[in-house]
Amino acid sequence: MTSLLSGPPAVVAAGVDVFSDALRAQGAAVTDVEWRPPTIGSAEDLTQLALDPRRAAANRAAVERVLAAGSVLTDVLPARDVLGLPDRTLLHSGPPLTWETASGPMRGALMGACLYEGWAETPEDAEALLASGGIALDPCHHHRAVGPMAGVTSPSMWMWCLTDPTDGRQAFSNLNEGLGKVLRMGAYGPEVVERLHWMTRTLGPVLQAAVRSRSADPLDVKAVLAQMLQMGDEGHNRNRAGSLMTLRDLSPAIVEVDAPSSDIAAVLRFIGGNEHFFLNLGMPTAKLAMDAARDVPGSTLVTVLARNGTEFGVQTAGTGDRWFTAPANTPVGLFLGDYGPEDANPDIGDSAIMETYGVGGFCMAAAPAIVRFVGGTVPDALATTERMYQITMTENPAMQVPVLGFRGAPTGIDVVSVARTGWLPQINTGMAGRVAGTGQVGAGLVQPPAACFEQAVAALAEESRTALA
Amino acid sequence: MTSLLSGPPAVVAAGVDVFSDALRAQGAAVTDVEWRPPTIGSAEDLTQLALDPRRAAANRAAVERVLAAGSVLTDVLPARDVLGLPDRTLLHSGPPLTWETASGPMRGALMGACLYEGWAETPEDAEALLASGGIALDPCHHHRAVGPMAGVTSPSMWMWCLTDPTDGRQAFSNLNEGLGKVLRMGAYGPEVVERLHWMTRTLGPVLQAAVRSRSADPLDVKAVLAQMLQMGDEGHNRNRAGSLMTLRDLSPAIVEVDAPSSDIAAVLRFIGGNEHFFLNLGMPTAKLAMDAARDVPGSTLVTVLARNGTEFGVQTAGTGDRWFTAPANTPVGLFLGDYGPEDANPDIGDSAIMETYGVGGFCMAAAPAIVRFVGGTVPDALATTERMYQITMTENPAMQVPVLGFRGAPTGIDVVSVARTGWLPQINTGMAGRVAGTGQVGAGLVQPPAACFEQAVAALAEESRTALA
Repeated sequence: MTSLLSGPPAVVAAGVDVFSDALRAQGAAVTDVEWRPPTIGSAEDLTQLALDPRRAAANRAAVERVLAAGSVLTDVLPARDVLGLPDRTLLHSGPPLTWETASGPMRGALMGACLYEGWAETPEDAEALLASGGIALDPCHHHRAVGPMAGVTSPSMWMWCLTDPTDGRQAFSNLNEGLGKVLRMGAYGPEVVERLHWMTRTLGPVLQAAVRSRSADPLDVKAVLAQMLQMGDEGHNRNRAGSLMTLRDLSPAIVEVDAPSSDIAAVLRFIGGNEHFFLNLGMPTAKLAMDAARDVPGSTLVTVLARNGTEFGVQTAGTGDRWFTAPANTPVGLFLGDYGPEDANPDIGDSAIMETYGVGGFCMAAAPAIVRFVGGTVPDALATTERMYQITMTENPAMQVPVLGFRGAPTGIDVVSVARTGWLPQINTGMAGRVAGTGQVGAGLVQPPAACFEQAVAALAEESRTALA
Repeated sequence: MTSLLSGPPAVVAAGVDVFSDALRAQGAAVTDVEWRPPTIGSAEDLTQLALDPRRAAANRAAVERVLAAGSVLTDVLPARDVLGLPDRTLLHSGPPLTWETASGPMRGALMGACLYEGWAETPEDAEALLASGGIALDPCHHHRAVGPMAGVTSPSMWMWCLTDPTDGRQAFSNLNEGLGKVLRMGAYGPEVVERLHWMTRTLGPVLQAAVRSRSADPLDVKAVLAQMLQMGDEGHNRNRAGSLMTLRDLSPAIVEVDAPSSDIAAVLRFIGGNEHFFLNLGMPTAKLAMDAARDVPGSTLVTVLARNGTEFGVQTAGTGDRWFTAPANTPVGLFLGDYGPEDANPDIGDSAIMETYGVGGFCMAAAPAIVRFVGGTVPDALATTERMYQITMTENPAMQVPVLGFRGAPTGIDVVSVARTGWLPQINTGMAGRVAGTGQVGAGLVQPPAACFEQAVAALAEESRTALA
């Protein structure tokens, strides 16, 4: 040990010149290794954004709007009425797509919606109708709506209507069908269509009457989401406590709806039997918050992460409605039954709005039990949340993670931080079967393709140059 | 640094001779410090127990019975019918007591029960009746029952009836009234008595009909408790997820009970408004498990931790129904409203059966958010569970703590481990106001008095000497 300390040092310096130069100036021998952390985007674009004098204030304004947004449940209405959705139009998750570019589960869900609406009698007819261009397709996000997985929403489907009480803005989502063979996972068999009919006939009207009966005291969905993080949910792939609290809060009003007690009991059983029932309330809550930050010039905040099963799409506060898209990755995780990795479709769904808001994968530390569903270990889950603080602008005081000493959720993804660190947002997700009609095959972890952020950096830098010119 | 390593060591050895002797044999100078960990019980008694050849097998048998016990909800019945509780008899929590030795909240609860049963018209009449010895008092634990806080149970009160499906044994608890001014916290005002009448008139019959309607598929209460630990509850002072799951599981049957929909809605609101509703189901579940380990000669397993507001009582598997009692400590924690430490009564309630079973304070690591209710910090909560592994015999594979990598709850308190380490079981508890009629003043942390374990060590050693003579 003495000889180690008394001899001359042998130095290898990685990346940063300042260290090796200082040693060389003292006469030490230094071996330089050319290395720098992997970054996304060009040095020129990142410098442009770093030096944009608008950026700090714009990001502060944008993320403060995200934190301030609220979300209460104000109504339940058919998509036809609330979105003005015309006949022969279907909404879907993620960025825009066509029948030709749609993946298996997206095609399956579109076909199932045609069967449910009565636009086709058989799956073959539905496929032909869609392939002929007889059905208009449009992203949910273009209608202030969000849909999990395929996100397919047709005019007759009932929608949760959520309102931000601070400014009256609204956001929407369809009703969650449960797990397994369900439309949003690409299944379209008779049991899927029959369940959708029951939801249209019974669930929707009962929920509408119950929600309207508490119009003086609407359900505070943001408060439920906050409480979920205290109860082992992360709000994307674990919604157990949230679904239970929703049932608790709505059940007294449901019971007093003028409907047969067998229908009431069926509604309670349906909600109680679906641990993801809350997801379709959490998503428009996050959508309300992220929409609040739209169109803030100079802000590098991510406002949308969404996938259509073929492409991943990103939007930012500084670039409005423009999509930055690239081929979606395929999740890695745990599989149901005999399914395996080869059965999984690439990443799909608007549900990554939860991570955009700072919960879901960003709050895995609040939900260590989720590793039994999406894979990984408990230390991984804790480390993931710690890592997400490095790519976000602030901590959301309303969304606290108990095990981190009630630290707020890492909130407000900064495109520049993602680009500089090379650390991509961590998303928890369900996995749909690659083949239309399969349904859910598992759940796992996935990240956006870096190419979306490369495009976002370039577009934000271009906007910056133009604005400052 | 070089001089430090090259010079002779200066050694101070604390407690254990073997280290200092070894150094002395090598010629080093050693300064001995007389110190040993604080222990409970005499060295002779601990040696007797350590050398008892029955102990290892007896403890293994006892704790295996604890792990194997199940708990399903089989009926709801008035105490009069299910316990054969005679008129003018009241059950209470903890070890035996008399009116003279009863604390303020215990007296308040006993008075309230006399008013509720119509045995007295005014609080003054009730006090006089109880002081005259006109009411028989008996511990819940002597009737296979457990009651939180004062635990006062009168003949007309409805009881949860839980059954261990492995052997048909039963355990019982009254129904939880909610928080604040409630009988079990020592309040006895008109609103308390009126709520008890509503529970007798409406809640009990509705629950009975609902529970009986699912007799083919009874609620698995042990499974609910296990799931709670995955959802941020520890099962003693956090029962949020458990109460929600109970509501979810019972509500479809409740809705189909033949009763006015306003009554049904009131029952759902009552359950949904009480985050501790599950506690009175969790406690008999733990009681079933601990009763399974009763009367195992040579076992040093703790089967009961219970407090009556004046004394703390302990029972062990090797000493049957014998109580080891000492004056109860007063919890330290967080207070409601303007209440402070001087308002808190000493420790009270049978609810420490949860810790006896290895959950509650023993599983604080599963419920970090509880520190906002009972005080302390999140690292304290994690460390508490780690410490409890040192005084318990095994880990319960059915009760897993996610953040510890799904390690099983520390289960089976060993009197000998408590005595050797001096580490006392950690209990999470509510705090009743010291003055009769006050109700709840807070929640906090408390430990049994060491004197209970001193007596238990002495009695177990005496039994060992007799058995081995």
